[in-house]
Formats: sequence, structure tokens, C-alpha cells
Amino acid sequence: MFTKTTIIGLGLIGSSLARAARVHGLAHTIACGDVSTEVCAKVLELGICDSATHDLADAARDADLVILCVPVGAIGAVMETIAPALKPGCIVTDVGSVKQSVIAQVEKHLPAHAAFVPGHPIAGAEHSGPEAGRADLFNDHWCILTPAQQTPASETVAAFWRAIGANVEIMDAARHDLVLAITSHLPHLIAYSIVDTASTLEAHTREDVMKYSAGGFRSVTRTAASDPVMWRDIFLHNREAVLEILQRFGEDLTALQRAIRNGDGAALEEVFVRSRDIRRKNL
Amino acid sequence: MFTKTTIIGLGLIGSSLARAARVHGLAHTIACGDVSTEVCAKVLELGICDSATHDLADAARDADLVILCVPVGAIGAVMETIAPALKPGCIVTDVGSVKQSVIAQVEKHLPAHAAFVPGHPIAGAEHSGPEAGRADLFNDHWCILTPAQQTPASETVAAFWRAIGANVEIMDAARHDLVLAITSHLPHLIAYSIVDTASTLEAHTREDVMKYSAGGFRSVTRTAASDPVMWRDIFLHNREAVLEILQRFGEDLTALQRAIRNGDGAALEEVFVRSRDIRRKNL
Repeated sequence: MFTKTTIIGLGLIGSSLARAARVHGLAHTIACGDVSTEVCAKVLELGICDSATHDLADAARDADLVILCVPVGAIGAVMETIAPALKPGCIVTDVGSVKQSVIAQVEKHLPAHAAFVPGHPIAGAEHSGPEAGRADLFNDHWCILTPAQQTPASETVAAFWRAIGANVEIMDAARHDLVLAITSHLPHLIAYSIVDTASTLEAHTREDVMKYSAGGFRSVTRTAASDPVMWRDIFLHNREAVLEILQRFGEDLTALQRAIRNGDGAALEEVFVRSRDIRRKNL
Repeated sequence: MFTKTTIIGLGLIGSSLARAARVHGLAHTIACGDVSTEVCAKVLELGICDSATHDLADAARDADLVILCVPVGAIGAVMETIAPALKPGCIVTDVGSVKQSVIAQVEKHLPAHAAFVPGHPIAGAEHSGPEAGRADLFNDHWCILTPAQQTPASETVAAFWRAIGANVEIMDAARHDLVLAITSHLPHLIAYSIVDTASTLEAHTREDVMKYSAGGFRSVTRTAASDPVMWRDIFLHNREAVLEILQRFGEDLTALQRAIRNGDGAALEEVFVRSRDIRRKNL
């Protein structure tokens, strides 16, 4: 499918893509670029690519597909670094959890002879880093692409994701950012926040919280094990949509808090029945 | 272990207890009482007990162990109903998720010749009702008992729970209610609330929320499939502890919201790193 595919950023997603591209035979050469020389050494040791260098421009040189797998706050700087090395006809894509900000960052530096197709696979795992990657991570998961219009480049990127087992969906970038704010960004923020609340309790209560976490805490906070830098960038770069959803969530939670304070069982039951029915019917 | 054990309320927990008591041979006779004649017919059909009646006093008559498995808001009325039928030396226990309120409700009606041992198994499942029960539901789960002091009755109840595979822990009732407010009650309230927030979005956004729920929404809202009436009662009867924890959580979430609004990445990262480390180290 490609002569040379370059992956920049070899965390969970990047290293999974390198593995998947190799398993499915999608590139003659798989090159890796990562600013960390330790990560470069690790991916060579894992044998999931043909080359690895901390010189990102060098990694991207002559590639026909470059996949940016760095935190969304680093995308602009990475794009600026690799832009001079991109060959004519090169397709650049990414895996960032925020799309409008990424598009703005990339387009500022993208050479006219290259094409950018914004992408976001809805896949993850509790652990991060190159060792955590898996070739089947995207299997039967959605990958959302948000190109301004369909082009040969966007069709090529869609074909790549389908080849590694993902279901591709095309969506408007603003809509993606709003949908992800509620399906992913808010749940992660809440998970981090509940663990934080638990951590401020006195020591012996905190121990009990962990001990009895099967009561709901463990399930609700599962996502709090995710990569902090990646999530910091997501919140900073999807600010408007996250604040909008946080505002709505705050209002809804305050209404429940008030019903508890007032002993209003009917109001609580109404929300619980509605939520249970939606949860059961849809998931 | 017992000649006659009576289970009042045959939902997920009650029907699991009937199954477990039978599997482990802990009672010669297992009697069931449930105000719903449909539930009584169902448990007889399932063959998990020897008798089932909607006359709760009749079910409890001559039992040496009575286990109350009704929503915590119904415990006082049930206790009042069965009190005249309890034989001398009878042990009454319960499985309610709130302990201080249950103790007050039960002690109001408990005859002097019977003993009450408050209990709470930390076990559950997404589905409710008698069909959802499982004999191994309590296996390797905690069961917290909160008796005012250790007595022969509390040791008998502890032995019962150990016999069906649970790990027993003795705890102060007020402490139980605080620990459970954060490990279980807050996570459930948040789960219901996030689903509620999602349900108020416009229809096509709502569909996308369900479609892309693998991004965190599905995991955080798993507990929103639980029984609404049971949870309504928990919040009404653990009001003080839940409001205290909600207040703390609200402050912590507001601090994160403010950091997002102000673009304060350092503050976000600090909380995320701390929460991730606690989550990973302990769970």
C-alpha cells in the first residue's frame, strides 16, 4: 500500500500502528521518529519497525504516509520540524483526540505539495508507552476522519484504517470535538477528579476506598490510569467544547444534589429510571 | 448451619443469597418472602427455595435467620411487619448499602428476643431481579458487618458470609456510610448524571454519543444500569455522607474546570499524574 510509512511518536497508539502496519503488510518500510532516544532504542529492540531516530525530519523524509501520534499540544511544532522533509504527494495524518485545534496547527506548516487528513481512532488502553502497543488495538473500533472534503488522500487514509481492522466514519471536525467532549473527555476528567477527591481523604479512609473499590469506584475511575500529558493537551485544545459539556454536567449533577438535600425521591427516581433505560438500550 | 433461613426481597442480592445458601447447604429450609406475587412465582419456578409467599410475617415465622434484602427505604416497614412472627433467638441481618439509617429503622421494631446484625456485601451486577442472581456473586467479595459490638449473633452472621465465599470485615456504621459514599454512592450518582447529560443533547449528537462510547463513556457509566429504586433509597438514607462527598467532589471538579478555562496545563498535569499514580498503585 505504501513504500515508506513514518510514524512520529511511539506511545501506545503509535507503536500499535507500527505493529498493525507490519502485520497487515501495508508498508515496505516502516520508519519511526520519536524525540526520546530511549523510545527509539525500545522500538528497535521490540522489532516493530525498520528504523528509528530522534531526528523527526529525517524519519519523515521520502515517506508517502506520515502518521503523527504525538500529544495534540505538540503537533504544530512537530509539523514545523518535518515540513521541509516531506516529499511531493506525501499524505500526513494524525490520531489526535481533538480535531479543530490539530487542523489549525498542521495547516499552518503543511507544504502545498503534501495533503493532510485529520484522523482519530477511538481506541485506547489503560497503559501507555511503546511496550503497551498491540497490532489488534484498532480491530472493530471506530476511526473518525474529519477532512474538509473527500479527496484521494482521505480515501487512502480510510483504506489504511480499514486494512488494520477499523471501521471508518467521516465527520465534521467541530462535531467530532463536541461528541468526544462528552463520550471521552468529560468521563476522563471526572475519573481523574474522583480519584483526586479520594486522595484528599484522611489516610485510613483512603485505604478503605481502595479496599472497597468494587462498589463502583474501580469501574468509574478505570480511565484515570491514562497518560497525563496526552490528557492535559486534550483539555487545553478542546477547551470550548469541554467547558460547554462541563457546564451542562455541573447543572445536572447540582439538580441531583439538590434533590438529595431536599429528600426529593421522585426527582431522583425519574432521572435514574431514564438513565438506566438509555444505558441499557444503547450500550 | 440453620434450620430455617428466610430471605425477604428476592432481587439480585436476595435471589443470589437463596442460591448460595442452597449450594453450600447452609439451611435445611429456605423460605422466601416478597411483596410481589410475580416474584414469588418466579423464585419457585427457578427452584431456588422451598417456599415463597407475599405474606412476609408468614415467611419469617420460625426462622432462625432472616435476611432483609429490600431497598433501604423499605426496611423499617418490613421489620414492623415481620416482628410479631420472629421466634426467640432469631437473628435478623440485612444487605443494605447504608447502615446508620437501617440500624435506626430496624431497632425501632426489633423484639427483645431477637438480635440484629447489620451487613452489607460489596457485590452487585448490571442487571437486577431474581433471574439475575448467581450463587457465586459473593465469592471473594467483601461483606462489611457493622454491629455495635461483637456478639454470638454477629459471629454467626460472619460465619454465614464466609461459608458462601465472602471476606468479612467489621466496621463502625458511620465509617461504613462515609467510605461507601465515595467508593459507591458518588460513582453511581455521577454515572446516572453523565447519562442524563448525554440524553439532553440533540438527537443526532446523542446517537453519536452511544456510537463512540468506547472512548470512556461506556466504562464510566456502567453502573448507571443499576436498580433505580434501590439507588433512590440509598441517596435519601445516606444523605449527610453523600452531600459531604459531593461537596468535595464539586470543589475538585471546579478546580479542574477553572484550570481548563485559564489554560493552566501545569495544574491539570499535576492532578492527572497524582490520580494516575494512585489509580495504578492501588487498583
